[in-house]
Amino acid sequence: MTSYRLAVVAGDGIGPEVVAEGLKCLAAATEGTGITFETTEFDLGAKRWHATGETLTDADLEAIKGHDVILLGAIGDPTVPSGVLERGLLLKLRFELDQYVNLRPSRLYPGEVSPLSDPGDIDFVVVREGTEGPYVGNGGALRVDTPHEIATEVSVNTRHGVERVVRYAFDVASKRERKHVTLVHKHNVLVHAGHLWRRTVEAVAPEFPGVTWDYLHVDAATIKLVTAPASFDVIVTDNLFGDILTDEAAAISGGIGLAASGNVNPDKTGPSMFEPVHGSAPDIAGQQKADPSATVLSVAMMLDFLGHAELAAKVEAAVADDAAAKVAEGWGPRTTVEVGDALAARIRG
Amino acid sequence: MTSYRLAVVAGDGIGPEVVAEGLKCLAAATEGTGITFETTEFDLGAKRWHATGETLTDADLEAIKGHDVILLGAIGDPTVPSGVLERGLLLKLRFELDQYVNLRPSRLYPGEVSPLSDPGDIDFVVVREGTEGPYVGNGGALRVDTPHEIATEVSVNTRHGVERVVRYAFDVASKRERKHVTLVHKHNVLVHAGHLWRRTVEAVAPEFPGVTWDYLHVDAATIKLVTAPASFDVIVTDNLFGDILTDEAAAISGGIGLAASGNVNPDKTGPSMFEPVHGSAPDIAGQQKADPSATVLSVAMMLDFLGHAELAAKVEAAVADDAAAKVAEGWGPRTTVEVGDALAARIRG
Ligand SMILES: CC(C)[C@H](C(=O)O)[C@@H](O)C(=O)O
Ligand SMILES: CC(C)[C@H](C(=O)O)[C@@H](O)C(=O)O
Repeated sequence: MTSYRLAVVAGDGIGPEVVAEGLKCLAAATEGTGITFETTEFDLGAKRWHATGETLTDADLEAIKGHDVILLGAIGDPTVPSGVLERGLLLKLRFELDQYVNLRPSRLYPGEVSPLSDPGDIDFVVVREGTEGPYVGNGGALRVDTPHEIATEVSVNTRHGVERVVRYAFDVASKRERKHVTLVHKHNVLVHAGHLWRRTVEAVAPEFPGVTWDYLHVDAATIKLVTAPASFDVIVTDNLFGDILTDEAAAISGGIGLAASGNVNPDKTGPSMFEPVHGSAPDIAGQQKADPSATVLSVAMMLDFLGHAELAAKVEAAVADDAAAKVAEGWGPRTTVEVGDALAARIRG
Repeated sequence: MTSYRLAVVAGDGIGPEVVAEGLKCLAAATEGTGITFETTEFDLGAKRWHATGETLTDADLEAIKGHDVILLGAIGDPTVPSGVLERGLLLKLRFELDQYVNLRPSRLYPGEVSPLSDPGDIDFVVVREGTEGPYVGNGGALRVDTPHEIATEVSVNTRHGVERVVRYAFDVASKRERKHVTLVHKHNVLVHAGHLWRRTVEAVAPEFPGVTWDYLHVDAATIKLVTAPASFDVIVTDNLFGDILTDEAAAISGGIGLAASGNVNPDKTGPSMFEPVHGSAPDIAGQQKADPSATVLSVAMMLDFLGHAELAAKVEAAVADDAAAKVAEGWGPRTTVEVGDALAARIRG
């Protein structure tokens, strides 16, 4: 018997719908294994903010810290000023829990359709830094809404912060077949941050003699993701570049409906958090139109993180098989629950 | 008889090869029109830096200011520390000459091949801000190359700087068929700069009652460029986002070999500069392998900027026809000079 404490933050928009299916598949995967998840639901997001003005209180944070892992649906709502929930809740969780590795795999499952006519065998992972860069919230504005307004955003990068995520990326690469890391930055323009990243990779690489590495400017990376995505193995990059590249990566490999992610604190000084890359999609919320596959794949990443690689593989295979069958058999639209039920049935075998 | 003073900065890598073909096509286009270009070649780039340690001196800058327009090939060389030429020469020109509009059209010419299986009718233009944002060079590093290193990059955005480029973008849109502007930023994370951009668009939009607009986060924009690129008309965005998106845009619409750009100072307080979006490609420099089409299209943009829309159209048509013929007839590789000769012949008609 192993029991985990799971914090559930369903959040906004389609969050609750996809999280329900994620939990359904988690139950299916652990059935009869002796592994159980004790869940606590956290009422966070737009509804809570409207009711109380709160995004994430110290008490919420303390309660969440008492858990082993977090499953998050989506954060963001058009009725709340842009940035309030993103910065005050989602990014606050990532930063306060020191989730410095934002792990985002991209795989084109056999049978899945890419918008590229010749995508090749896409199978790479982006290791996005999660606690620094332009995301630190270190900026401000002067003379707001006058002709003399000036607004700044400061990207803060430390050797400590860069080194730990670079080492993680090389470690991930060392366990993969191709063992290759691509550093993506823009060191010809952002010379201070860019050269810090470059020097750090140069310093860490010798610790992994079996791993090769190269460098690509972020603008060139967006080209290669379209012209030769199969050539990537592991990409390591800064918080903002990672945000941008992983959406493009999702688009070329089966779509954002299949993009999963883990916000990982490898040192386990706080719980790690698993979430689909897609947003809250308020336009289709509550309509059972959302694809829960990305959330189910995030559950697989969570199981893998907890050391249950076999269960993770079973869940991932269910999603891959379902996606392939959908395309091969030309299925029409299904409800969120229907997809979740189908995935849970496949997981049970 | 109209005579223009043209500053030529061939620069590094493939720059000199593609610029030679650009000038050849310019000569072909103006032949017998009474329009002449008096060119001054500027020895700027890696060779000059190695010889003198100079990137762009005050005297160079003053001399360049005495010209009507600039044609630039490419800047950047692996033998020079990254950033030295980019910041000290290319960006210095854009900033010092107040080229605040970086205009980058994307068109999938009929017959050209996109890596997308269903690209649709791609025809949009990115209006990238050219003198602010994370490109200002406002950052630094402390305790460099120690475990305590910290590096910052400051994005500086002003109402003045944003408003003028936003107004330009709406003006461009007002002259196009679909009359639609998409603001791209990341205002849910970069709240200070993002909200400045959003408020500025809200303030400027009423000046153009015929133009509609919407907003897209930069990460979502990378998806839409792959899944629905034909839906874009005019994109207005910040310096760094524009850098990233225009490379992706080039990749999906015929490739970087066809991507032209203008660094425009609409107020004409300094010369505007036209350059291909591709870089110096040192790996193929001097081998006559580079495609000069993007430079020739940049020449077309220059002619258009100077008020010679008909000549510009002629040059653009030559490139479009050549690209279509190349695909239709399955031509093998041609040398840089061969492509330039073919284009010049088409321009002469
Ligand atoms: C919602 C937003 C704050 C978030 C981010 O920018 O990190 C999202 O785009 C993501 O990629 O998880
Ligand atoms: C070479 C580099 C400084 C430049 C930029 O980042 O603007 C290039 O990528 C471009 O897009 O013109």
